[in-house]
Amino acid sequence: MSIQFRKLISSLKKGEANLKKFHLANDPEIINGASLEKANSNEISFLEDGNKLNLILKDTNACAVLVHDNPELLNTLDKIGIAYASFQFPRIAFAETLEILHPKQEINYGIHSTATIYDRRNINELVQIGANTFIGRDVVISENSVIHPGVVIHENVKIGMNCELHSNCVIHSKVEIGDNCIINSNAVIGGEGFGFVPTQKGWRKMPQTGIVVLENDVEIGSNTSVDRPAVGETRIGKGTKIDNLVQIGHGVKIGSNCAMASQVGIAGGAIIGNGVILAGQVGVGNRVNVGDNVIASSKCGIHTDIEPGEVVSGFPALPNRLWLRCSASFKKLPEMFKKLKEIESGKT
Amino acid sequence: MSIQFRKLISSLKKGEANLKKFHLANDPEIINGASLEKANSNEISFLEDGNKLNLILKDTNACAVLVHDNPELLNTLDKIGIAYASFQFPRIAFAETLEILHPKQEINYGIHSTATIYDRRNINELVQIGANTFIGRDVVISENSVIHPGVVIHENVKIGMNCELHSNCVIHSKVEIGDNCIINSNAVIGGEGFGFVPTQKGWRKMPQTGIVVLENDVEIGSNTSVDRPAVGETRIGKGTKIDNLVQIGHGVKIGSNCAMASQVGIAGGAIIGNGVILAGQVGVGNRVNVGDNVIASSKCGIHTDIEPGEVVSGFPALPNRLWLRCSASFKKLPEMFKKLKEIESGKT
Amino acid sequence: MSIQFRKLISSLKKGEANLKKFHLANDPEIINGASLEKANSNEISFLEDGNKLNLILKDTNACAVLVHDNPELLNTLDKIGIAYASFQFPRIAFAETLEILHPKQEINYGIHSTATIYDRRNINELVQIGANTFIGRDVVISENSVIHPGVVIHENVKIGMNCELHSNCVIHSKVEIGDNCIINSNAVIGGEGFGFVPTQKGWRKMPQTGIVVLENDVEIGSNTSVDRPAVGETRIGKGTKIDNLVQIGHGVKIGSNCAMASQVGIAGGAIIGNGVILAGQVGVGNRVNVGDNVIASSKCGIHTDIEPGEVVSGFPALPNRLWLRCSASFKKLPEMFKKLKEIESGKT
Repeated sequence: MSIQFRKLISSLKKGEANLKKFHLANDPEIINGASLEKANSNEISFLEDGNKLNLILKDTNACAVLVHDNPELLNTLDKIGIAYASFQFPRIAFAETLEILHPKQEINYGIHSTATIYDRRNINELVQIGANTFIGRDVVISENSVIHPGVVIHENVKIGMNCELHSNCVIHSKVEIGDNCIINSNAVIGGEGFGFVPTQKGWRKMPQTGIVVLENDVEIGSNTSVDRPAVGETRIGKGTKIDNLVQIGHGVKIGSNCAMASQVGIAGGAIIGNGVILAGQVGVGNRVNVGDNVIASSKCGIHTDIEPGEVVSGFPALPNRLWLRCSASFKKLPEMFKKLKEIESGKT
Repeated sequence: MSIQFRKLISSLKKGEANLKKFHLANDPEIINGASLEKANSNEISFLEDGNKLNLILKDTNACAVLVHDNPELLNTLDKIGIAYASFQFPRIAFAETLEILHPKQEINYGIHSTATIYDRRNINELVQIGANTFIGRDVVISENSVIHPGVVIHENVKIGMNCELHSNCVIHSKVEIGDNCIINSNAVIGGEGFGFVPTQKGWRKMPQTGIVVLENDVEIGSNTSVDRPAVGETRIGKGTKIDNLVQIGHGVKIGSNCAMASQVGIAGGAIIGNGVILAGQVGVGNRVNVGDNVIASSKCGIHTDIEPGEVVSGFPALPNRLWLRCSASFKKLPEMFKKLKEIESGKT
Repeated sequence: MSIQFRKLISSLKKGEANLKKFHLANDPEIINGASLEKANSNEISFLEDGNKLNLILKDTNACAVLVHDNPELLNTLDKIGIAYASFQFPRIAFAETLEILHPKQEINYGIHSTATIYDRRNINELVQIGANTFIGRDVVISENSVIHPGVVIHENVKIGMNCELHSNCVIHSKVEIGDNCIINSNAVIGGEGFGFVPTQKGWRKMPQTGIVVLENDVEIGSNTSVDRPAVGETRIGKGTKIDNLVQIGHGVKIGSNCAMASQVGIAGGAIIGNGVILAGQVGVGNRVNVGDNVIASSKCGIHTDIEPGEVVSGFPALPNRLWLRCSASFKKLPEMFKKLKEIESGKT
C-alpha cells in the first residue's frame, strides 16, 4: 500500500504519538518504511533524540522522517527541506505508519476442511482455523482468533479473542490463554514440567497436574517452552512479551509488562515481578524472587533474590555498576599478579 | 477425582514411599494436591525435612499433609490436629497421591483417519496414533505407545512399548527408542549433526549417516534437539531425563539416570557418565569426558575432562568450593586494585 | 551399500580430496564408515595429522583407512599391512566415501494427497511435497526441492532448487531461500522480530514488516529461529551454516561461510562478517559489528565491535590469549587476597 504524506499526517494526528509539528514539503508518496541509512526516495524513516542526526540526515534518501519535537533538529530538517513530522513519541508514530503501509493480511482459512476438531460448540463462528490442525475436546476459542496451520490444541484449553496461534505451535491440556495473545510458531505451552524424585531405582516422575495461564496481551516467541507444574499454575502476567527459545519452568509466576529476550531460562518456581526486563541468555534459578522493574543484562545468572528496581549483571549477578568495575579489573588480573610478586620479592 | 484420606492411606501403604505413621483426623475428602502456602481446605500437601515447617504449617489451609517421619514434626502436627501421614520418602508419596487424584486421561485416537502410515505391519494393534501424523516405511511401534497429533516419524524407526510421543515432535530415520520413553512436543530426535569440512570453496557437508539410540525410560523435553552423528551413534542411557531446549550434539554418549536441565548444550563427541546432573544453561565441549555422578551448577562451561563425583561451577569449570571463593573475591577486585596501588605508592 | 576398496579408490580419484598414494592390501569389501576406535573389520576409517596415530592404528579393526599424505604415517601403515589411501584432504575423502556408502534415500512423496497447496503455478514439477504440509498463495519452489511432512510455508515465499525443508519447520511470509539450502526440523524462518515500543500503557508492538533472505547453500539447524525485522531484511550469507537452537534476531546480517554452533544468540541489528565462527552458547549484542573471520569461543559474550581476524573469549569478550591468562588468574584470587592482606599487615 502507498499513502501521501499529507494523508499519513492526518491519520497519525489521531494516533497515540502526539503530533506536534509537520512540514509537507512536496507531499511525497510513501510506499514503505526503512532505516535512515537504507531508505529509498519513496520510503519514510524515523529517528529519535540522541542519534547522530545531522550526519545521517544529510545522506538519507528517505522522502520523509518522523522525529522528536527537538527545535534544533527541526531547524536542520527545515534547511534540508525534507518532509517531516515531529511527535512526543516518534517511535509510536513509526509503528502506526508501518501498520498503515502494511495492513494486516486478511486470513481466510475459514474452518479448513483438513482441520480435526472434536467439538465445535465452544468455538466462535468468527474464528479462523488453518489446515492440518487438531483441536481436542472442550476447547473454547473466542471471536477473531486465528489458528494457523499445523497447530495442536489439546482438550480443555481456553483461548480468548483476537489471539493468533502461529503454525505448528502446541497448546497442552487445561492451558488458559487470555485476549490479544500471540503464540509464535513451534512454541509449546503447557508441556510437562521437569519434575522427578530421586529414588534408589533412578528418577521417578512427579506427575505434572497443574495448569498454565497466559493473561491478556501476552506474546510468546517461536520455539519457546512454557511448562506446567506438578500442582498449581505457571502464570505469565498481562502484557508480558517473551522472545524466542525461552524456557519458562514449572510453577514460574511472571508479572505484567515484562520483556524477556531470547534464550532466557527461568527455573521452576521463580517469581518475577512486574516490568522486569531480562536480556538475552539470562538465567534465573529455582524459586528465586526477582523484584518489580529489575533489569538484568545479557548472560546474567540470578541465583538469589533481587530487590525491586535493581540493575544486575554477570554471574553470579552483581549490581551493574559494581560488575562493570569488576569486569574492568578482571582483564588486568595477570598484571596485578605480576605486581604482587614484585612487591613480595622486594620485601624478601 | 476425589478420595477420602483413609482410602488414600491404604493405597499409599502399598506404594514405594514406606508409610510409617498416620493420623486420620476428620478423614478429609481430598480433591487435589497443592503447595502448603496455596492449598485450599480440600487439598493435600507435602513437606520435607529442612523446610521452615512450623511457620508454614500453622498457616496452611491444607486438610492433610504427607511428611517425613520426624518425631518433632509429628509432634507439631498432632498439636495442630491436621490429618497427616509420615513416610521414609514423602515426595514419592506425594507423586503417588497426584497419580491417584489425576488418573491418566484415556486417549482414544485409535488410528486417526488423517494419519498417513506407509506400512502398518510392525505397528502394534494397541498403539494410538493421532491426527495429521506421518509414519514412514519400516517403522516398528510396540504396544501401548501413543503418537500424538502432528508427529512425524521417518522410515526405519523403532519405538518400544508404553512410549508417548507428544505433538509435532519429529523422529528421523533409523532412530531407536526404548520402552517407557517420553518425547515432548516439538522435540527433534535424529536430525543431522553439525558436521562440515572446511575447504577452499567453503564448508562441505560431512554426511551424517549414524543413528540415535534412546534407551528405556528416557524423557526428552520440548523443543530439544538430539542429533545423529556422521558415523556410529548418539546414545542416551536408561532412565536419563532431559529438559526443554537442550542440545545433544552428534555422537554424544550419555550414561544412565542423568538429569540435564533446560538449555544445556552438549557438543559433539562428549561422553557423559552415569548419574550426572547438569543444571540449566551448562555447556560441555567437544569430546570432553564427564565422569559418573558429576554435578555441574548452572551456566557452568566444561571444557576439560571432569573426574567422577566432582561438583563443578563457573566458566571455565572449577571445583564448586573454589569457584564460590573466587566469585566472592571477584566482587572485591576494584578494592583490591586500590590497595595494591596504595602499597606501591607507599614504596616509591 | 557395500563397495570394494579398489572401486572406492577409483571414485575418490575423481573427487576433491586429491588422492596421493594408496595400498589395496587384500582389497577389502567395505560396508560402512566408523571411527578408528569403534570400526569393525568391514568398516573404513580416517585420521588426520596430529592424532595419536600409532597408538590407535595398532588396535583398530578397520579394514582400511584414509589418511594425510604423511611419509612417517604411510610407513607405519605399510608395516601394519592395512589397506589405505592418502590424500591432501582425507576428511573430504571420508565425506565422499560416506556419500558412496550411504546414497541419499530416494524420496517419493510426489505431491502427497494430504498436502494443502493454495496454488501450484510456481511449484516446479520435480518438487516433492510430503504429507500434511501447507503451502500458501504465491509460493515459488524450484526443481528438486523436497518439502517434508508437516512443513508450513506461508504466502509469497520463494524457495530455490535442491533445497530440503525438514519436517514441521515453518517458513513465514515473504521469506526468500536460495538454492541448495537445508532447513532442519522445527526451525522457524521469518517469525516476528521481538520489537516493542515502551509506552505508559505497556509494550506496544512495532509491526515486523521486513523479510528474511537465506542465500544459496545455507543450512539452518533444528529448533532454530530466524526472525524478520520491522523494516528491511534479515540476511544470512552464502554457505553459512547454523546449528540447532540458535536465535538470529530481527535485522541481523550474517556474511558468507560462517559457522554458528548450537544455542548461539545474535541480537537484533548485529552485523556479522564473512567466515566468522561462533562456538556454542555465544551471544552477540544488539547492533554489534563482528569483523570477517572472527572466532569466538564457547559462551563468549560480544557486546562491542570486534576487529576482523580476532579470536575472542569470555564475557565481556577479551582477546583469547588475554582471557586464558585472566581465567588462570581468577582461580588464584583467594590466594592473592590472602597475600595482599599479609603484605598490608606486615606494613602496619
